[in-house]
Order: sequence, then C-alpha cells, then structure tokens
Amino acid sequence: MAELTMFGLLCVCCCFQFIWGNSQLPLQDDYHGAKPTRGEPWPLPQIYTPSSETFSLNYLSFDFPVTGATCDTLTAAIRRYEQIIFGDAELDTRLKFFPGFDRFSSADGSVNSLSVHVQEACDTADNKYPALESNEAYNLTVASPTSQLVAKTVWGALRGLETFSQLIYEGLDGQFEVNKTVIVDFPRFQYRGILLDSSRHFLTVEVLKKNLDAMAYNKFNVFHWHIVDDQAFPYESILFPQMSATGSYFGLSHTYTQAQIKAIVEYARLRGIRVIPEFDTPGHTQSWGKGIQNLLTKCYSSGKPNGNFGPIDPTLNSTYAFLASFFGEVAEVFPDHYIHLGGDEVSFSCCLLNIINSLKKGYLIWQEVIDNGATVRADTIVEVWKGGYQAELAKVTKMGYHALLSSCWYLNLIAYGSDWKRYYACDPWDMVNGTQKQLDLVIGGEACMWGEYVDSTNVISRTWPRAAAVGERLWSNKDVRDGTKAAPRMAEHRCRLIRRGFQAEPVNGPDYCEHEYSGV
Amino acid sequence: MAELTMFGLLCVCCCFQFIWGNSQLPLQDDYHGAKPTRGEPWPLPQIYTPSSETFSLNYLSFDFPVTGATCDTLTAAIRRYEQIIFGDAELDTRLKFFPGFDRFSSADGSVNSLSVHVQEACDTADNKYPALESNEAYNLTVASPTSQLVAKTVWGALRGLETFSQLIYEGLDGQFEVNKTVIVDFPRFQYRGILLDSSRHFLTVEVLKKNLDAMAYNKFNVFHWHIVDDQAFPYESILFPQMSATGSYFGLSHTYTQAQIKAIVEYARLRGIRVIPEFDTPGHTQSWGKGIQNLLTKCYSSGKPNGNFGPIDPTLNSTYAFLASFFGEVAEVFPDHYIHLGGDEVSFSCCLLNIINSLKKGYLIWQEVIDNGATVRADTIVEVWKGGYQAELAKVTKMGYHALLSSCWYLNLIAYGSDWKRYYACDPWDMVNGTQKQLDLVIGGEACMWGEYVDSTNVISRTWPRAAAVGERLWSNKDVRDGTKAAPRMAEHRCRLIRRGFQAEPVNGPDYCEHEYSGV
Repeated sequence: MAELTMFGLLCVCCCFQFIWGNSQLPLQDDYHGAKPTRGEPWPLPQIYTPSSETFSLNYLSFDFPVTGATCDTLTAAIRRYEQIIFGDAELDTRLKFFPGFDRFSSADGSVNSLSVHVQEACDTADNKYPALESNEAYNLTVASPTSQLVAKTVWGALRGLETFSQLIYEGLDGQFEVNKTVIVDFPRFQYRGILLDSSRHFLTVEVLKKNLDAMAYNKFNVFHWHIVDDQAFPYESILFPQMSATGSYFGLSHTYTQAQIKAIVEYARLRGIRVIPEFDTPGHTQSWGKGIQNLLTKCYSSGKPNGNFGPIDPTLNSTYAFLASFFGEVAEVFPDHYIHLGGDEVSFSCCLLNIINSLKKGYLIWQEVIDNGATVRADTIVEVWKGGYQAELAKVTKMGYHALLSSCWYLNLIAYGSDWKRYYACDPWDMVNGTQKQLDLVIGGEACMWGEYVDSTNVISRTWPRAAAVGERLWSNKDVRDGTKAAPRMAEHRCRLIRRGFQAEPVNGPDYCEHEYSGV
Repeated sequence: MAELTMFGLLCVCCCFQFIWGNSQLPLQDDYHGAKPTRGEPWPLPQIYTPSSETFSLNYLSFDFPVTGATCDTLTAAIRRYEQIIFGDAELDTRLKFFPGFDRFSSADGSVNSLSVHVQEACDTADNKYPALESNEAYNLTVASPTSQLVAKTVWGALRGLETFSQLIYEGLDGQFEVNKTVIVDFPRFQYRGILLDSSRHFLTVEVLKKNLDAMAYNKFNVFHWHIVDDQAFPYESILFPQMSATGSYFGLSHTYTQAQIKAIVEYARLRGIRVIPEFDTPGHTQSWGKGIQNLLTKCYSSGKPNGNFGPIDPTLNSTYAFLASFFGEVAEVFPDHYIHLGGDEVSFSCCLLNIINSLKKGYLIWQEVIDNGATVRADTIVEVWKGGYQAELAKVTKMGYHALLSSCWYLNLIAYGSDWKRYYACDPWDMVNGTQKQLDLVIGGEACMWGEYVDSTNVISRTWPRAAAVGERLWSNKDVRDGTKAAPRMAEHRCRLIRRGFQAEPVNGPDYCEHEYSGV
C-alpha cells in the first residue's frame, strides 16, 4: 500500500496547489482555450450594439434587394455572400434530413431580407478599382423583417456584407439565427495589408486566391505581392520573357503568366483588395540577372570577375533603359496607383525614382532608403520593418513621409503558443513622442509572411487566423486592445474560417470547433 | 549623382563582404536550399549500393510476381505501391499528351517486374499483426529485366516495397527510371513511433489515416495514440458509453466509434504499424470524471468540496472495479500486446499494474513512474521525455528496464528555421556511460506531436517532413548523422510526400518541388 498512500498524498497536494498537467492549469474549464462566441464579428466594428433579441433567417426566401447604385462588383459580392451564409451543399443535406427544420425556430421573429444601398456610382472607370483613398464605411442595421446596409461606396458595402455574414450563426435547433444589432463602422487605418512572398517558394494561383478570400473575411484591403527576389523570378514579363524563362524555379509551372496575374488582380478587385507588386531593387535581384545581360554588378576576386554578381549595376546606361522599360510594363500590368520598389538592405538609386515619377505612379519603399539618406518624393510611403519601430515611425513621420508598420508583424517568425496576442498588442501609433500630425501620417500596416519556410502546403494554415489579430488592430478602434477579451471572438472567427473551407490552425490552446476541418 | 556613387560603393562592398539579403548568403546557389536528389531513399538503408546504370520501367506491363508466402497484407500492399509508383490519373494524362513517350527513354535497359518473395507464412492468426519482435529486414536488388525483393516476413516486404517505390524517379524525358541498386536493409531500432494527441484537439479519422500513410512512407511502425486526456474523452467505450457522451468535446462528431477505431487499427496493420493506445492515469483524467461518478478525487476549500477534482481517487474500491472493467475492454479493442498507461506528472498506483498483469498485456509508462520509485514489472518499457535524457536513459537501463526516447523529439514545440537538423542530431544511444547491455535495452523512440496547437487543419503539414528526421535516426545506421549531407535527400523526400498528396511543409529554406502541392 506504500504506493497507494503516496498517490493519495500527491492528489491532496494537487488539489491545494492547483498544479498538475502539462499546462499547469488548476480548474477544469481552464484546460480549454476560450469558448467561442456565437455570431460576433471580427474585426470588431467601431460602434457595435448587439441585443439579445434573436431573429431567424429563412434561407429559402432570403433576399438581398439593391436599392441604390449597382455594378458588377456589388452583384458578384451579393452572390458570394449568399453562398457563404447559406451554403448550397449544406442546405441540400438539411432539407433531406430535416425537411421541416426551419419550423422549429425559437427566434423572436424573422429577417427576410437585407437591403443594400450604395450611395455613389460604382460602375465607371474611375471607381472600378479600390484605392488608398477609398471610403470603406458602412452602416448596418439588423432588424425584422428587413435589415439594412448603407454605404457611400461599393467598397463599404463589401465590408458590410462581410460583417452581416459573420453575425449569422447556427442556432441550437440548426436554424440560421441573428441578433438584433446596430453597427456604424469604418476602418481606423486606410492601408491594411498582407505580404506574401512568391520568390523564396512558389505559391500556386489557387493559394493566392484562397488567401485573398481570407483577407476579405478579415477586412484586409492590400495584397502586397513580393513577387520576385534573389531566389526566383516567377513574373512573366511581356517585354522580357527571358527573365522568367531563365529566372523562375522550374519553367512555366513556376511562373505567373500575364493571364494569371490579370485573374488575380480581378479576383482581388472584386473583394475590394488592391494588389501592390513589389519588384525589389537594387539588391535582391540575383534572379533578374539570368535573363538580362550586364544588369548585375560583376564581383571580382584578385582583379578578375569571379562569376558572382552584386546588385543591379548603376554605372551602365543600359541599366536605366532596362529599368524604364520594365517598370513601364509593370505600371501597366498592375492597375494600382502604387508600386513597392523595395530598396531594403542595399541602398537605393535616385534614378529609379525618376523613372517612377515619369510613370505617374506612387511608390512604397522599405525604411533603409530613408535611413541611408536617399532623396525621395514627399508623398513616399515608407514601410518600417526593423526593430525599434517606435523611434523609426517618429523619425519617418517627422520628415513628413507617410509610414506603414510591419516590424512586429513578421508572421513567418513562428514561435510555440498563442503568439497572436503579441501581434494584437502592437500598434502603429506606438510612436516615440508622436504629435497628432505625425500619427495622421501613419496610414496602416502589414502582416508579412515571408516565404523561406512556407509554400502552398502551409501558407494558409500558418497565416490564418494569426493575421486576423493584425486585421483587427488595423480596422477596429484603438481602444480594442485586450487580447484576453478578444480570445473568445478569435475562437469563433477561427471556426468560421474553417467552416468556409480554410485550414485555420488552432491559436488558443486546446479547443474545438463544432464543425472541424474535413478537407483532408 | 551622390546617390549613384553611394549605390556603387555599397555594391562593391557587398561583393567583397559577401553579405546582403535577408539570409546573408554570399553566392547565388546558396540562396536556395539543398537541391533535391533523384531516386534516393529515406530513411537510408543499412547497406545501399546504387550505381549509375539506369533502367526504365514500363508502367503498362510492369508486374509484381509473388514467389513465396502470401496473404491479404501483401496483396493489398502490392496494389497500393503499384498505385503510388505509377499513379493512374497521371498516366492517363501522359498517354493523352504523349502517346509514345515511353519510347524516348535514354535508359540502359528496362525493369519489367519486381518479384516479391516472403519466406514465412503471413496468413495465420499469430502473424496477422505486427509486433515489437517483428522482423522487418529485407533485401532488394534492382536489376534488368527483373528486380527482386526478399524478406523473411511480410513486414519486411512492406518496408522493401516502400524503398523500391522511392528509388523510382521521373527521368528528364518524363519516363519512369530507376538505377541499378543493391540494398540490404533492417531497422536499427525495433520501436519507431509517432505520438498524436486527439484530446487537446480532435483529429478526424481521415487525418489519422493520412498520418498512417506518411508513417509507412517513413518506415515508422508504432502509432502511439494519446487518445484521451483532461480536455476531452473521444474514445467511445462499449462498457461506459457515457464517458464519451459527456466527456468528448461535442458529441458524436468528436468521438471515435468502435467501428472507426477498428478501421484505424486495420489501416495501420496493413501498413505494418502497431497502434498503442494511451489511457493516461491517474492524472490527466478530468474528462473521464464526467461520465463516471466518484472516479476523481474531490478537492476541498475550507473543509468543503469546492466542485473541482484531482486525479483518480485511489481510496475507493469502486475505482479499481471500474479500472479493471475499462482496461479489460481496452485490451480487447486494441490488439497490440502493449498499452501505454501514462503516469506522467502525477504518481502512479501499483494496483493498476496488477490489473494489466491480469490482462496479460505489456505496458509502457512515462518516466515519472520510475522517477517516483513505484514498483513496476521487469519488462516495463519506460518512455523518457524530460530534459537530461542522457542521464535518465542510463538510469532506466541500469535498473534493467527497456527504454524509449522522446525528450528531443517534441515536434509540437515549433521554432523558426530548419529545426529538423536538431531532431536529426539527437540519438537514443546518447547515454551517460552506457554499457553495451544498457544500449541494447533502448528499443527506440517516438516523435511526439502534442495537440495543444494542432488539429486536422495543420497536423499533417507540421508533422511532415520534420518527423522524417526521427524516422531516419531510428531506422538507419548510427553513423548516418550528417544533417548537411542528408539535406538533399530530405529535399527529395519532401517533394515525394507532396507528390503523394501530403502537405509536407518546406524545411530547408528557399527551394521548390518540380510538382508543387496543388490540393488547395
């Protein structure tokens, strides 16, 4: 009985010390992560007034009447959200097994339609694409029998449709339910980006589109496409096709054709997402050099070229002729006003900026360009990515430039545990002695998923829902900062992404979704 | 021109210092990870003699004649590997686009068949399941026109078929090719396990089967199923169905039924994989208590029960009656001779061991049971999982117990970068002053993927190919330890897993597979 006694003693000890198990958690409920909310939106709207009054939705007759301006963007979005909310396949199953299930609702009434009212025209050339200045505000009133979504622009309507879709949840009787709610919403920052890197590893077109869907579900509005780098040149150039022919990893299967790029830009546009391509120069261009002779600086050993190359060679006129042609093409292929010119880790040439000026485009650069004292345009957007960002943001905005933060949001740098709370705590307004004028120059931020250790196998599960933490930081009110309070909503949001077909990985420790991922 | 000069200066600097870019890598080739080998096996066979002589394989007529003993296990395996090697869908495409592609081979000859010779009967009750003592050795000779696989048991034949499938690669002309090769192979350790945890997060049956496939492709032979824990009780008991009804996360959708468990055990058996269930006691049993009254020790505050519970209550006779019935059932449901009894982090009761004795089963325990001085059977297998494993392995084997290592293979504890090389460097024979007799008591090891941050969304991509490092350590010769040398083979192996439909994530930094994952 010696062991029995020891066992008994240890048990008592446990009860009093409240310490055992891998996680050293005392109480049963604490063994689990946050319990998911039901029908609460992510990111949190600026003004969000839910009530306990519950309505049911009849999927057989639910309607989205358009009462204002309309265009292909709006029509496609309504079709998409109808599918997201009610999901055809699911309905067939329900109808088959529970032909009368919609009669068992315990709701206080029903919502039969969401009227969608866009105030400004959305079918002309100048409002076809979202832009940095786009207005994304919307008002949403969930009421019985008709709910209302009002937005100045179609981009606001897209955000409102997403929120509406998130408010709907599965009631205990299997019915679609929604709580009476009033929402007034608009983004805190105009620029809310995700960077993906298709050079370190190739990402398939399907994965890029999948990521655009996830971005829309998290109200991100910029896909920063780090499309080429030292490792590979998957961009199929119209003028210089030899660059991808020789610089891509493995020929056409690892290249983005012009048709594919067009499809990606269009897919993004329909979701209110801008595509900003990055063609990083003058360093990070090893893969460019294979297709363009004399583009890169030759390296020398003992006074002779040793077969290695440095950055783009600034001493040759041919370099500038090439860059003017190449960036002229890029400016056409990518309709967004902005191009990201890189400039990180190797200093920048003024001449490239002159080229961009002549193309009448805006541009973004990594912070080194400023740190190295290069002359840039007054309207330059500077992306702060290094440590000590609080001081750098202050410096950049003091110089009058627009700033973008990504330092604390390198999602590729994984660590064990609930790291999203660290991302959630970081804020673009964390600036050393920033004046209001300086804060106003911060236009947003980006979650970066650099490609060294992600490809089409894991980029979705590793990015989502961790990037959602950044999404809420950039959209919601600055006072929405309590990660512990946000955790149950994050839990629901992860389950929501899984329900929509995403491999959104666990982020809150042990927990579950009522509908687990079943795509494997 | 100030910027231009600076730009030029920096470039020269780069060329000489060989430092720029995120990865601070000097030469173009080093921007990429290891270049994949072509047709080299993982794990490396004990004696592996490839030659440069190349043969082609004609998928239309290739045959696997069986010349020795046969049984359902062998027949199913041959059908499986025929599919893995030649892949029907792929063939249809090839035939369509290149009707005569098999005529363009540059090979030195062709291999028309692999004769498979199993020496011992494999169709009787006592050899139906793989066991700790199973012989997995095989000899494989790749020659033209007939290759030969000879094994004492069907389990060895399974390992040889896997190796044969790995030797075949896609030639430059799209042809199936294989090099003339002689292999004599056997495992260094008898126990090569993967632990998955279906309690912290539920894992679907499909994912568990998928993982068994990956295990077979890496010559693992034990699935250590940490099926229940504090958080959830997904095991559907025949005798105590209320345990999963009240203890699983969300009813039947988060429960393994008896039929599903039977299917998983059979799926594993056909791949030469044992399923060892872990029912961890006496701690880690919070989820058990919901369905079994008075099973857990009540916790007290100010002399009164406070609604919380400690480990299994050792002071009640009802506890032992329950444990005898429950483990009696478990011993029937899981055919393997061994059960893992847990015992970690809370000390163990002798009485449970008496129960297991009466069931005529062997058992494994976590190291604490020994560390706490409990009395166990002489044939106990002790799993060493804590830090300081070199000393613990010495201690456990000095006491005469069999030992299993998992300390250095907690794959759930992710870190940025190529962490597989760390797993690759660790070895079960890393023992403080171990005698040969002590080394002989080490039966192998396990890669553990605890479930706090993985579920069906990411368990495959996070486990593979990282666990392959452990697979090679446990199968191959002890001198196969050079991670840098292994990296190109690892690169090929990852691409192989992707080709077989697995989301095997990047592990070597920037690289690519000729056929990327396209399942999304």
